[in-house]
Amino acid sequence: MTPAYDDTLRDAPTETFQFHLKKTDGKARLGTITMPRGTIRTPAFMPVGTVGTVKAMYLDQVRDLGADIILGNTYHLMLRPGPERVARLGGLHELIRWPHPILTDSGGFQVMSLSSLRKLDERGVTFKSHIDGREHHMSPERSIEIQGLLDSDIQMQLDECVALPAEPREIQRAMEMSLRWAERCKVAFGDQPGKAMFGIVQGGDIEALRVKSAEGLKALDLKGYAVGGLAVGEPQEVMLRMLDATLPVLPTEKPRYLMGVGTPDDILKSVACGIDMFDCVMPTRSGRHGLAFTRRGKVNIRNARHAEDKRPLDEESSCPASRDYSRAYLHHLVRANEALGGMLLSWHNLAYYQELMQGIRKAIAEGRFADFMAETQEMWAKGDIDPV
Amino acid sequence: MTPAYDDTLRDAPTETFQFHLKKTDGKARLGTITMPRGTIRTPAFMPVGTVGTVKAMYLDQVRDLGADIILGNTYHLMLRPGPERVARLGGLHELIRWPHPILTDSGGFQVMSLSSLRKLDERGVTFKSHIDGREHHMSPERSIEIQGLLDSDIQMQLDECVALPAEPREIQRAMEMSLRWAERCKVAFGDQPGKAMFGIVQGGDIEALRVKSAEGLKALDLKGYAVGGLAVGEPQEVMLRMLDATLPVLPTEKPRYLMGVGTPDDILKSVACGIDMFDCVMPTRSGRHGLAFTRRGKVNIRNARHAEDKRPLDEESSCPASRDYSRAYLHHLVRANEALGGMLLSWHNLAYYQELMQGIRKAIAEGRFADFMAETQEMWAKGDIDPV
Repeated sequence: MTPAYDDTLRDAPTETFQFHLKKTDGKARLGTITMPRGTIRTPAFMPVGTVGTVKAMYLDQVRDLGADIILGNTYHLMLRPGPERVARLGGLHELIRWPHPILTDSGGFQVMSLSSLRKLDERGVTFKSHIDGREHHMSPERSIEIQGLLDSDIQMQLDECVALPAEPREIQRAMEMSLRWAERCKVAFGDQPGKAMFGIVQGGDIEALRVKSAEGLKALDLKGYAVGGLAVGEPQEVMLRMLDATLPVLPTEKPRYLMGVGTPDDILKSVACGIDMFDCVMPTRSGRHGLAFTRRGKVNIRNARHAEDKRPLDEESSCPASRDYSRAYLHHLVRANEALGGMLLSWHNLAYYQELMQGIRKAIAEGRFADFMAETQEMWAKGDIDPV
Repeated sequence: MTPAYDDTLRDAPTETFQFHLKKTDGKARLGTITMPRGTIRTPAFMPVGTVGTVKAMYLDQVRDLGADIILGNTYHLMLRPGPERVARLGGLHELIRWPHPILTDSGGFQVMSLSSLRKLDERGVTFKSHIDGREHHMSPERSIEIQGLLDSDIQMQLDECVALPAEPREIQRAMEMSLRWAERCKVAFGDQPGKAMFGIVQGGDIEALRVKSAEGLKALDLKGYAVGGLAVGEPQEVMLRMLDATLPVLPTEKPRYLMGVGTPDDILKSVACGIDMFDCVMPTRSGRHGLAFTRRGKVNIRNARHAEDKRPLDEESSCPASRDYSRAYLHHLVRANEALGGMLLSWHNLAYYQELMQGIRKAIAEGRFADFMAETQEMWAKGDIDPV
């Protein structure tokens, strides 16, 4: 008889990067990633620490909520404080006081969404900083170099993410170049047993291209695989169709990361497709704008119905932000544009996201993920508690 | 033999508002204010909780730093969330989760500095909200009513604070009207044994008018006295001269509160004149702008010299914000305009202010306030640690 699953226990760290697939339930997967800086229980949600801070949160709080890993944005960090400076300061972990694993993106996505006057060709991308207009160049090799200077534990290949809708020819061109860049990133990354470099499946909304991309990356035998270029405005149904086409091609013994996703419902359905890792700014960004994710769906705390409601967002939560502060106070803080409003709602939302991941892992462990998913969706559909 | 002073011990709360003058050292005074919601060790610094939140701080942190009382701004709270709403929500303490004493100002100062199109006469002041332009009227009676709806423990009379420089005739007119308003506020406040209403000495930079104001207020036999209309741009020397003129007139057995003051140096010198209570937005506002107050004077964390400095603001501090985060990280956060920068520097500054007050109280208890003042000023003059 196997002992009952205890989500509070993390496996011991290991000297090399390893993925352990512990259990499957349908296509949903329970596992751990172990490496020198710690262990990531999967399916995992990675809070986004954009520019070296999970916005409006102390990292102690982020850890206490159950985060095993956070994400840093290479684009933001390369502009400020700059990778060489971060290296001189002992690396990102030491700078921001997060000794646990960190994943960094390649910077490519934000180069394309935030910077201006960029030029993109086989060699890489030239762009102007959105902060001071200074010109920068990033090649696949430089992206890996920067991520190394940051001392990132899981590094991402540079890729080109095409905005949808796009011409099939354009999607194919970008996907093929991303594949060639993956190979260059693999070479640049070299042999670092305690760390990993993940490839990124591209191919837009065309299943055949997604399959080709996944096959090409699989042939590179990388330590993990991400699915990129989704959750960029397309319907959820398209995203899930792309996952269904892609994931069977990828090796089961490697972790799979769906980049930039998503809503709690996106996460639930993507876990059902076999995704192991997620990151998204949604809990923190929405929090700053007064939107709370709860067991009973979304709550817009700005709405007048909360103005005199003394009840908390969720009295059953163990998070102080969710349990101890009245909706009336949160409503007031958000309306008055006070920092504490964003602090409390980011805290609440990250707590809810981590609670959801804990529920997902427990359900897979107990072989009742489908039921958990149905129950969770049913609670969301019920909607918020009745107004006072 | 009296036991050594232990600043961590607060006297038990009392059913009625009481001031206990425990010791004097020169003109500096050590005491406590006791009342039903708790005890305030004086000299006290009251963090400003403008609109129901000490900006970018959890109130648990504010309490842990040693704050016995915080201040709420009647002007801000009357506009949002509104006093009647606060009352329906159980009062300000319950709304913001601060069960300890709260002092509220009368709203007068901010009406005059923030609102527009105001009309001021004997009856009170009519003004338009800086938020939505709606017209409001505040009389001395309405100010006390609002502070009562907020359930404030120490309430302030409505006064008229004249911007300096001003004509003597104008200063005298405003001072005399403020005296008449004090009397109306006293009547409106009535008999509330567990709470207090303080009068406010006005009179601009004219000693004779300050004395007249103090005499008039003393005759009203109020529970405490504030000195207002200072720290509004005049030289520190003028402020101290006004205190020297005013305080001897006030009864020794009542607490004395210097409104809106100030820098650590202002506080030290005003304690030396016999002031018991202070409030100021400086630690939180400066913190959000990257200015840190330390044992070794002011530190502008935005300066380039901190960009690669791994040392904390003050390694001897017991406050995590001061002790555990590198200057390089604080520099980065403030430069990148990240919320955590304001959170950490507000925390650090409030810690420093409370540490200063603890030092002041201990020094008075031990009869060495003059030495403490000289040592503290000497450390400030030394300036920050040498650059790396």
